[in-house]
Amino acid sequence: MAEQITLREVGLRDGIQMAKSFLATDHKVDWALRIQAAGLREIELTSFVPPKIVPQFSDADELAKNLPQLNGVVASALVPNLKGAERALAAGFTHINYVLSISELHSQSNVRRSTGEAIEEFKRIVALKASQAGRQMVLGVGLATSFGCTLQGFVDPERVLEVARLIAEGGADELIVADTVGYGNPAQVKALLQPIMEIAAGRRVICHFHDTRGLGLANVAAAVDVGVRVFDTSLAGLGGCPFAPGATGNINTEDTAFMLESMGFSTGVDIPALLALRHDVEKWLGDERYTGAIARAGLPKTFKTNS
Amino acid sequence: MAEQITLREVGLRDGIQMAKSFLATDHKVDWALRIQAAGLREIELTSFVPPKIVPQFSDADELAKNLPQLNGVVASALVPNLKGAERALAAGFTHINYVLSISELHSQSNVRRSTGEAIEEFKRIVALKASQAGRQMVLGVGLATSFGCTLQGFVDPERVLEVARLIAEGGADELIVADTVGYGNPAQVKALLQPIMEIAAGRRVICHFHDTRGLGLANVAAAVDVGVRVFDTSLAGLGGCPFAPGATGNINTEDTAFMLESMGFSTGVDIPALLALRHDVEKWLGDERYTGAIARAGLPKTFKTNS
Repeated sequence: MAEQITLREVGLRDGIQMAKSFLATDHKVDWALRIQAAGLREIELTSFVPPKIVPQFSDADELAKNLPQLNGVVASALVPNLKGAERALAAGFTHINYVLSISELHSQSNVRRSTGEAIEEFKRIVALKASQAGRQMVLGVGLATSFGCTLQGFVDPERVLEVARLIAEGGADELIVADTVGYGNPAQVKALLQPIMEIAAGRRVICHFHDTRGLGLANVAAAVDVGVRVFDTSLAGLGGCPFAPGATGNINTEDTAFMLESMGFSTGVDIPALLALRHDVEKWLGDERYTGAIARAGLPKTFKTNS
Repeated sequence: MAEQITLREVGLRDGIQMAKSFLATDHKVDWALRIQAAGLREIELTSFVPPKIVPQFSDADELAKNLPQLNGVVASALVPNLKGAERALAAGFTHINYVLSISELHSQSNVRRSTGEAIEEFKRIVALKASQAGRQMVLGVGLATSFGCTLQGFVDPERVLEVARLIAEGGADELIVADTVGYGNPAQVKALLQPIMEIAAGRRVICHFHDTRGLGLANVAAAVDVGVRVFDTSLAGLGGCPFAPGATGNINTEDTAFMLESMGFSTGVDIPALLALRHDVEKWLGDERYTGAIARAGLPKTFKTNS
C-alpha cells in the first residue's frame, strides 16, 4: 500500500480571490462537486472575509448550503477574524482556517492588525470553539509569509517557530505553514518544517506554497522529505494574495498530484478529471494566469497512479 | 565559504537545436561571451552532428575559432559519433560530450544505432582519445532517456546502471545522466543517482534535466541531496530533442541559479546579467518557447548570492 498524501484544493478560495470576474455560484458548486468526483478529499470552499473587501466571496452563505452534497470531503472556510468564524459556523462549516501573518507589514496590509493583535484574535476564536458545546469545530491556523515577505523582506524563522508554538499550545488543531509570496527554497523548507513538525506534536501540518518563483514543487518534495503529508494546491495554479504585492499562483493541483504519484505516494486524485475541470474553469473565468506542465505536456506514457 | 555547484550552459547546443531559425554565428559568439561574463564556467558551445541533419550547427568550425576568447571557461562540443569527435578535436575542442541512449527506440531514432552499437562507437572514441599523444581530451558521456522515453516508455534503471558501469570503466571522464523527455521525479532521481555516484568513483557526474512536466527544479534539489554538483541548464529554458517526441525545455539557467544560491550554494552566476542576455536572445531567435519564473517575477527582495 502506497503512503497517502492529502491535497487540499484551494482554487475556490485562494485561486479566485484575485480573479477579475465574479465566478457564478453555480460554477463554484460545479467546481467543488467535480473536485469531490476527482477523488480529492479536502477543499477550502470559500472565505468569510467582508464581501465589501473581496466581493468574490459574497456568496459564502449560499455556497455553504451545498455542504451536505460534499459528503466524504472535508470542506473548510477561511476566516480573517472572530466575526468570520462566527459566520462560518452559522453557515454550517465545521472546519475553519484562520490566517495570521508573521510579517508585521503583511499583517497590517492584510487585516490592519499587528501579528500580536492577530494572535489575540486567534485566542478569541479558540474561545468560540470552546463554547461550541457538542458541536464539532476543527481549527486550522495559517502562518502567512513564513518564508519571507514582498513588503517586509526578511522574516525571522525564530519568530515563525515562536508563533507556531503559541498557536499549537493555544488550541489550534492544524498548522498551515504558508509561503505566501513564493520566497521559500527547498533548504529553507526543510530547515523550517523540521522543527514545526516537532512543535505540532501530532497535529496536522499543512504546507501552503506558491510557485511565484518556480520552486513550488521542489519545496513540496523537500517538505515530503521531512514528513509533511498535506499540501494546499490550486487547480490550474490559480491564486495570489491581494495584499501581498507580486504574489502569484499557488502550486498546481494537477502537477503536484503527478509528482507525488510518480514518487510512489497515493493522492487519490484522478488527474484527467482535473484536466477536464480545468478546461471548463478557463471558460468560466476567462482571462487569468493558468499554469501547469501536465496540462501542456500530458502525463508520461509510463504514468500509473497508486490510488 | 559556500559549497560550489557548477552550471553548464547548454543553450547554444540543446537550447537552439530545434529553433525555427538559424541563429547568426555572431549572435552565438555574443551569447557565449556573455555567459562567460555572467560568471558561468562551463558551456556546451556547439554540436558536431552532420549539418544536413541539424543545420543550426553548420557553423561549428567557425564557432570553435572563438575558443581562445573563452579563457576561463570549459567549452565543450557534443558529438554523435567518432567522426564528430574527430571534427571537434580538429576544430580545437578539448572537451567532448558523446551521447548514447539507454532507450533502444530513442537510440534508433536519434542515431540509427542500437544502444549496443552506440557503446561500440564509444569505445572507438576512447581509442581516439588514447591516440591523442600529449593532447588533452576530456570525454563526457551522456546517457539519454535514463528516466524513461516518449517512444519506448519504461527504461530499466538496471540497464542505466549497467551502461553507466561500462562507460565509467571503459574510459569516460564524466557521466552525464539525462532525463531527455522530462519523465523523472525526485524519488527516481535519488534512487538512480545514488548508485551512479558510486559507479562514477570520483569521475564528475552531471545531471541533464528537462522541465517538460514541471519537475526540473525538484529533480535538481533531489540530485543535490545525493551529492550531484554539476547541472546542465539552458538560458530561458530553451531546448528539446528533435528525435524525442514531446521533449521540451531544459531546466532554466536563471531559475536554477536562483534556487541553488537561495539554498546556500555558490554558482558564480550573475542572474541579472543572464536576464539581460535572455532579453537579447528573445529578439534574435524570435518565436520560441521561453520559460522561467525569475524572468517573470523577479528575484526576492531578500535574495543574496553566495558567489
